[in-house]
Amino acid sequence: MAYVDIVTILAVFQFIVFAMKVGRARAQYGIKAPATTGNEIFERHFRVQQNTAELLLGLLPGLYLFSRYWSPVIAAALGLVYLIGREVYAATYVKDPAKRSIGFALSFLPIIILLLGGLLGAVRALF
Amino acid sequence: MAYVDIVTILAVFQFIVFAMKVGRARAQYGIKAPATTGNEIFERHFRVQQNTAELLLGLLPGLYLFSRYWSPVIAAALGLVYLIGREVYAATYVKDPAKRSIGFALSFLPIIILLLGGLLGAVRALF
Amino acid sequence: MAYVDIVTILAVFQFIVFAMKVGRARAQYGIKAPATTGNEIFERHFRVQQNTAELLLGLLPGLYLFSRYWSPVIAAALGLVYLIGREVYAATYVKDPAKRSIGFALSFLPIIILLLGGLLGAVRALF
Repeated sequence: MAYVDIVTILAVFQFIVFAMKVGRARAQYGIKAPATTGNEIFERHFRVQQNTAELLLGLLPGLYLFSRYWSPVIAAALGLVYLIGREVYAATYVKDPAKRSIGFALSFLPIIILLLGGLLGAVRALF
Repeated sequence: MAYVDIVTILAVFQFIVFAMKVGRARAQYGIKAPATTGNEIFERHFRVQQNTAELLLGLLPGLYLFSRYWSPVIAAALGLVYLIGREVYAATYVKDPAKRSIGFALSFLPIIILLLGGLLGAVRALF
Repeated sequence: MAYVDIVTILAVFQFIVFAMKVGRARAQYGIKAPATTGNEIFERHFRVQQNTAELLLGLLPGLYLFSRYWSPVIAAALGLVYLIGREVYAATYVKDPAKRSIGFALSFLPIIILLLGGLLGAVRALF
């Protein structure tokens, strides 16, 4: 399980880095808390962070359940694709939100595979 | 544990469906990313997704801990009530946010029971 | 593990209390769903809740992995610091968002220690 645990923690750290970029953008563009709007670039960083939070809600149970029913190594490999996809997503979103699709797909598809694999494993375990 | 794992994954998939409806509403009402306001119906879909993300933070540990200290089958049954409650919540919220209370209660109460059960089990395990 | 499980559940209940305060502020300041802006005090409560949701995404895996690789008791103690830090954060944020730093640090640092500890434990387990 160590590989999956490492990927789990890296995914959380990546999310924390995105959150720090939101904090930096907050200072840079003078968006005082509690506001979350008022500057386009700040809002892009904010949406990257929010969207990543949402994906983590699927990634973390997916990694865990796929590992338990199938293979921790394959789960970790899918998690690695997710990590790269998120980097692409964040970089393209901040430059131009319209070009976020590829990075999104690259980080979203591994989650779907992990969850479908977990579901299949759990259903099979019933019989 | 397989029943609980299935409900866990279904809850995440339900959340993903809510997220997809936000994406569709984004296109339909011309709300360009990173904006999350500007059309009432879009905002309703968005709030359904956000609120569901918040509940998942209670549901997932609740399912896991209730299963470990008490019964995976009862945990899964409570999770099933949550899933139905969330469907009611989403459907009523999008039609009229003022009528979201019943669906909210039906998805919130199972989480409270799961968490209180987990807490009781953990406290009892100390003695 | 019982200590960690108790802290996990307390952290989720604390988050639910923050969410309830958002609901109360919604009624008090007449912010009708799906709106999440329009009153400064409401927005502060809302941001406290949102920020806590984001931290839970790091805290919960951190507690679990630190417990597994090192010590559930130390993990629970760090979780206790987090709980106190969040109370400070919420109280100061609602009074004056500019003074949220100490409470934030007190709730953020335990998460970083938990995650770094988990990462170290997982990497060490590979060799």
